[in-house]
Amino acid sequence: MDERAALALLEGELHPAGDDAAVVDGLVVTTDMLHERTDFPSGTTRYTAGWRSVGASLSDVAAMGASATAAVAAYAAPEFREEELLAFVRGARDVCKGVDGEYVGGDLDGHDEFTVATTAIGRTDDPVPRSGARPGDAVCVTGTLGRSAAALELFRRGAREDDPDARERANELFRFEPRIAAGRALAPHATAMMDSSDGLARSLHQLAEASDCGFAVDAADVPIDDAVRSVSESEAEALERATTFGEDFELVATLPEAELEAVREAVDVPLSRVGTVVESDDGITVDDEALADRGYTHGED
Amino acid sequence: MDERAALALLEGELHPAGDDAAVVDGLVVTTDMLHERTDFPSGTTRYTAGWRSVGASLSDVAAMGASATAAVAAYAAPEFREEELLAFVRGARDVCKGVDGEYVGGDLDGHDEFTVATTAIGRTDDPVPRSGARPGDAVCVTGTLGRSAAALELFRRGAREDDPDARERANELFRFEPRIAAGRALAPHATAMMDSSDGLARSLHQLAEASDCGFAVDAADVPIDDAVRSVSESEAEALERATTFGEDFELVATLPEAELEAVREAVDVPLSRVGTVVESDDGITVDDEALADRGYTHGED
Repeated sequence: MDERAALALLEGELHPAGDDAAVVDGLVVTTDMLHERTDFPSGTTRYTAGWRSVGASLSDVAAMGASATAAVAAYAAPEFREEELLAFVRGARDVCKGVDGEYVGGDLDGHDEFTVATTAIGRTDDPVPRSGARPGDAVCVTGTLGRSAAALELFRRGAREDDPDARERANELFRFEPRIAAGRALAPHATAMMDSSDGLARSLHQLAEASDCGFAVDAADVPIDDAVRSVSESEAEALERATTFGEDFELVATLPEAELEAVREAVDVPLSRVGTVVESDDGITVDDEALADRGYTHGED
Repeated sequence: MDERAALALLEGELHPAGDDAAVVDGLVVTTDMLHERTDFPSGTTRYTAGWRSVGASLSDVAAMGASATAAVAAYAAPEFREEELLAFVRGARDVCKGVDGEYVGGDLDGHDEFTVATTAIGRTDDPVPRSGARPGDAVCVTGTLGRSAAALELFRRGAREDDPDARERANELFRFEPRIAAGRALAPHATAMMDSSDGLARSLHQLAEASDCGFAVDAADVPIDDAVRSVSESEAEALERATTFGEDFELVATLPEAELEAVREAVDVPLSRVGTVVESDDGITVDDEALADRGYTHGED
């Protein structure tokens, strides 16, 4: 079984199924585990690892439209080096500070491979599900897509050519701002929301399944990050990476078209309308061509 | 650096230092990571692993005197087998149910070694610290000590002699009841509290450091579990295991002697008074002999 099949199996056992985070008693709770081999390319600093791993959980809190309360991390490594540990904690703390959450520490553990498990907690009385998208709604994306795809390319270049500038730029691209403020601003309007951590293509497929709808996307409106353009041979390659690579932690939200302008003003980051919600029979298309359900599945690594 | 040195290093960086769980905004948050090699002996069922790993985090919530709200677990394994996953989730859910908490799922992740990271969240307006013990207070322990030491011995026997009964008994011993209710009942009276996950000896040393006190313990009053007696050659060996092996997840609390009887009636499990808080200059003794700071340190595995 890969991760998706296993998650599907557990849907009958777990509560609640499908959304980016669980909601219990006004609290939003979400957890993730990241590993050196699959999640932290060679050249990733511990500061970036702390930022990114805690940020990934905060992104799930953002996707529910919740505020960020606190985050913890369990840090496992073959050995504990002072400068690495302190850098990790600083990264974790800085990403929390940026979203008015508090990093409250965690656990340390000896382990063969550098592994981090993070949990973030948020609050909302009105969580945004994945299931409310309605035909006619606008579908929007915060920020830009493709930063992590570009970072991976730059980490590879950094390692191949021993290029410290490429590594530094890659680390910067890897440290994303979790969209907590944008999620709060979107929440009163959004009919469905999730993050783009598995890629825009997979996010749209998941929203379509939860909401029983389809999507018509315009390729020209997908906010492709300049960084991924600069490491791609063509615009088509950049679009492909921006759409399917994932790991970008932007928000993908649907909302009534009439509210789009008001939301754009309320959100603190660029909000791109990439298409429209359509009937499920019309499927998921980009420029009228079917968009495959491809993206990042951890179990396949 | 071993785990304790690393934790000491982080005390300056993290907030709050030392207690079993962080407290933020009325919430108690704690996280742990467990690995097959160091935490789940051969013969541990996935049901037991789910129970125990989530229980370990709930125990930290109990140690703060908090109620249990929710728990999550990130489950990483080389492959996802249906029956294993479902058993794990059932164990996680059952341990939560027993303490009126809710298991709300988690993350799945491919990884070489079976690894679980759990986070538990509780609520309290009045967390019990480690730092309030005063000379003259009684020091008490819930339940019995040595269950996990006995379980480990039985897991070994189960593997060596292919003895399913030993394995079954070991699994039972491994599934402890987190002391949430006892912690709630102790909280209004306790001057200091923590769990015994690193062993009674280490717990006393940690309480002594946080409270700047000593302890005088009577060996005859240590509640040694019958299971650890039955796998030990002598009473002295059973006492040694009950005192230093750890992983038992009982509560160690100090409280005014005058309140002892009232607390005993309020607590839903046996509460043994094992000794008295003394001045720090008097050290930590068992029957007047110095008790070494020995116990379970994950980093040493």
